Amino acid sequence: MLDERIRCSRLKDKIMTAEEAAEIFKDGMIVGTSGFTPAGYPKAVPKALSERAKKGEKVEISIITGASVGDELDGELARTGVMTRRYPYQTNKSCRDGINNGDIEYADMHLSHVPQWVKYGFFGKIDIALVEAVAITEEGGIVPSTSIGNSNVFVEKADKVIVEINTSQPLELEGVHDLYSPANPPYRKPIPIEKVEDRIGTTFIPCDKDKIAAIVITDIKDNTRKVSPIDDIAKRMAGHLIDFLENEVKHGRLPEKLLPLQSGVGSVANAVLGGLLDSKFEDLLIYSEVLQDSVFDLLEAGKIKFASGTSLTISPERLEDFYEKFKDYRGNIILRPQEISNNPEVIRRLGIIAMNTAIEVDIFGNVNSTNIMGSRMMNGIGGSGDFTRNAYLSIFTTQSIAKNGDISSIVPMVSHIDHTEHDVHVIVTEQGVADLRGLSPKEKAEKIIENCSHPDYKDMLKEYYNQAVKNSKYKHTPHIIEDALSWHKRYLETGSMKI
Amino acid sequence: MLDERIRCSRLKDKIMTAEEAAEIFKDGMIVGTSGFTPAGYPKAVPKALSERAKKGEKVEISIITGASVGDELDGELARTGVMTRRYPYQTNKSCRDGINNGDIEYADMHLSHVPQWVKYGFFGKIDIALVEAVAITEEGGIVPSTSIGNSNVFVEKADKVIVEINTSQPLELEGVHDLYSPANPPYRKPIPIEKVEDRIGTTFIPCDKDKIAAIVITDIKDNTRKVSPIDDIAKRMAGHLIDFLENEVKHGRLPEKLLPLQSGVGSVANAVLGGLLDSKFEDLLIYSEVLQDSVFDLLEAGKIKFASGTSLTISPERLEDFYEKFKDYRGNIILRPQEISNNPEVIRRLGIIAMNTAIEVDIFGNVNSTNIMGSRMMNGIGGSGDFTRNAYLSIFTTQSIAKNGDISSIVPMVSHIDHTEHDVHVIVTEQGVADLRGLSPKEKAEKIIENCSHPDYKDMLKEYYNQAVKNSKYKHTPHIIEDALSWHKRYLETGSMKI
Repeated sequence: MLDERIRCSRLKDKIMTAEEAAEIFKDGMIVGTSGFTPAGYPKAVPKALSERAKKGEKVEISIITGASVGDELDGELARTGVMTRRYPYQTNKSCRDGINNGDIEYADMHLSHVPQWVKYGFFGKIDIALVEAVAITEEGGIVPSTSIGNSNVFVEKADKVIVEINTSQPLELEGVHDLYSPANPPYRKPIPIEKVEDRIGTTFIPCDKDKIAAIVITDIKDNTRKVSPIDDIAKRMAGHLIDFLENEVKHGRLPEKLLPLQSGVGSVANAVLGGLLDSKFEDLLIYSEVLQDSVFDLLEAGKIKFASGTSLTISPERLEDFYEKFKDYRGNIILRPQEISNNPEVIRRLGIIAMNTAIEVDIFGNVNSTNIMGSRMMNGIGGSGDFTRNAYLSIFTTQSIAKNGDISSIVPMVSHIDHTEHDVHVIVTEQGVADLRGLSPKEKAEKIIENCSHPDYKDMLKEYYNQAVKNSKYKHTPHIIEDALSWHKRYLETGSMKI
Repeated sequence: MLDERIRCSRLKDKIMTAEEAAEIFKDGMIVGTSGFTPAGYPKAVPKALSERAKKGEKVEISIITGASVGDELDGELARTGVMTRRYPYQTNKSCRDGINNGDIEYADMHLSHVPQWVKYGFFGKIDIALVEAVAITEEGGIVPSTSIGNSNVFVEKADKVIVEINTSQPLELEGVHDLYSPANPPYRKPIPIEKVEDRIGTTFIPCDKDKIAAIVITDIKDNTRKVSPIDDIAKRMAGHLIDFLENEVKHGRLPEKLLPLQSGVGSVANAVLGGLLDSKFEDLLIYSEVLQDSVFDLLEAGKIKFASGTSLTISPERLEDFYEKFKDYRGNIILRPQEISNNPEVIRRLGIIAMNTAIEVDIFGNVNSTNIMGSRMMNGIGGSGDFTRNAYLSIFTTQSIAKNGDISSIVPMVSHIDHTEHDVHVIVTEQGVADLRGLSPKEKAEKIIENCSHPDYKDMLKEYYNQAVKNSKYKHTPHIIEDALSWHKRYLETGSMKI
């Protein structure tokens, strides 16, 4: 078995226990790890590292990942105080708590910026690259597992590389990856992707053998998150979205087979994408970051021709079935580094239809994706900005209310902005669709309130807007500045945005 | 003379007066015009069109331009009520007043989005393209004047084309332009620019002769805006910026000759760029949208090797001198369509250093570039988003105070966001520089307050921030939601942000 997984005999000397590998980490180091929406992240070494802290040792490190990783990494290192700084995206409860109580310094970044910042030297020197793999080739090439994320740039730039060979990840994954890393300016060339399925690189991460400091064998499974069953609300959103897309095709603004689709992460995004199962669309293409359950439903149903991402995130209950059928999908999927999956150049060229989830939207079309009530970090912006800013069409979905109706997801002014009015083309809630293209702020407000807001809040929104139009001296973006955030204030004080 | 300017003899039949050409416009039409930061915009026909309205005729039209245009277009059509809808950028007083009093529906868009939206059909059918030119070739090709903007896509997509041949614009401009228009997805190819000076297209706008409905001869000069003399405040900002860039070079994060520079429009941007005259940097490259006075100072001083833009905006007092020396510059400048000058693909590939001007910045690094006190449209986002979102480094400059100190440009929360915390790397005021890369929101706040805020407001900012850290339940982005916009409220009520 080991010969299949570690094909360079010289490197077998580097096999050691997770505990031994954990000793390589020193206080103050900057560590880049594999992992994207928790798939393909290192598991054994972080746990062993956290044990050192539990024994009272001071090991404080900065962690840069692809995106979210599992509890073995974010949870363990947050709870034991090892992680003092974190980039660029997370979804783990302990990590989030650490961020929100002020213990962890978190910089929430566009995912496509991270790899180039590593290469530009903006993070400083990367001390260790800690990456999960299914195998190491004869030449020392690292074959990633269920995600690529930033693994390739960490391996390229780090002083030392630690590889977790995860035997729970099937060797069949080999061949699915396509590794390519653009040069830094002024030497950067066009990225030669013209179609979703184009292959432009290698199936492994090139790595100088001498940099590999440790190889740890593990069999801990990806600890992915459960996906909620598709409910009526999600079905209604999906229905509105499909109606909208059909209408675009009818008017010649989209080709019949649409354009490549990107979908955000999580249950709502999964459900919305899943809605395409019942649509008349065929031969669809996916150019996204995360390939979730619904992508595989669509592949199985023959609705999707090809899917490109940087991570395979299959929910726990689907994982076994997925691997059984994997040979059927293999030819139709590709995993790319997030520098490529989320690259503005490629996204704009291919003409992506971007579908992302909002926490709240304001009447002028600004979107908050990250900070609840302006202060509390949820997960992070992730790739939503990379896609939204460069998409052919950028669509945001959100249920019109949250917290059993105590929160309206449509508000006079959002308490934090991740996507500006300039980048948000379409809003979809279970109430309906607001197509904002070409509208002035006032026209946007009227349409969002009318089509997207919940009946419980519609009159309140109209009241705010009408008062603003009436009383604001300047009427381009009418606001009552002292009331603009009053809904959030009320929620914080009373537990409800309702009066 | 006319033979030189209109080289296709058949088209001479189309020569008519501005008044005759103005009759082609019908109520309800969508019109795309040339013009960018007022250079190369049509002048005679808009004035004639406004005369129709003055006589009581109802002609209400939507105007899409490249960027800002002169008073002959925006001013005349706004004052006479002809312009009821406007995209995507303006700086004219009458137009701005119309927007802010609610008479003109204005959609403030990223400049790079406009041309592709025209081609995608998102604006609907373009009825008329009205463009200024220096000449028409034998084949009907239109040679633009001092800007390209969106002229090429308007000509491509409009039913009818009206050309103003402006004899005040020298024929020497021919050869400076490089026209290229990417196909729509799914047929779009890589844009083959790898260096600032690369030529990829034609020197004229290809045009079907039969679409040319009118040719009007005019000699009205570009009515560009005055540029303020460089004052001490601007010099200090430029000094801080140059120190910052030198330090980046020293640490290996920028090459010695830097990377191509983009600079926003206006007096501050002009002054900051002009600061490079006294720097040690050599062989600089400009990849920007507007080439202003300071670019020509730098060219003359031998500091700039090559400059690419979409518009030549020379201040009135410099224009004569500029044309006299134009033959010396010709080989070192290129004008591109704004779809290319502002293209994310090219900006990211070349690794642009983007330098734009903020109206206000908040302590967490969010930037407002458009809406004063949240409501009053100033000009628009222009190309600042196109560059900022895709730059190697994105830098914002602003004086730390405005209105004689009654406004602090650094505030607890900005009243409108055009550039989010995720896209703003460096803030420069006359007080100093805040390098925000890799920082958490709390670290950003401390650095911005310390390095960039004005002494009159520093303690107030510290007080807000400290109270927020102390009292906010969630400390990722500490805010006191009910006070976050209180500085704006106070200004609106008392005329000053000071207590």
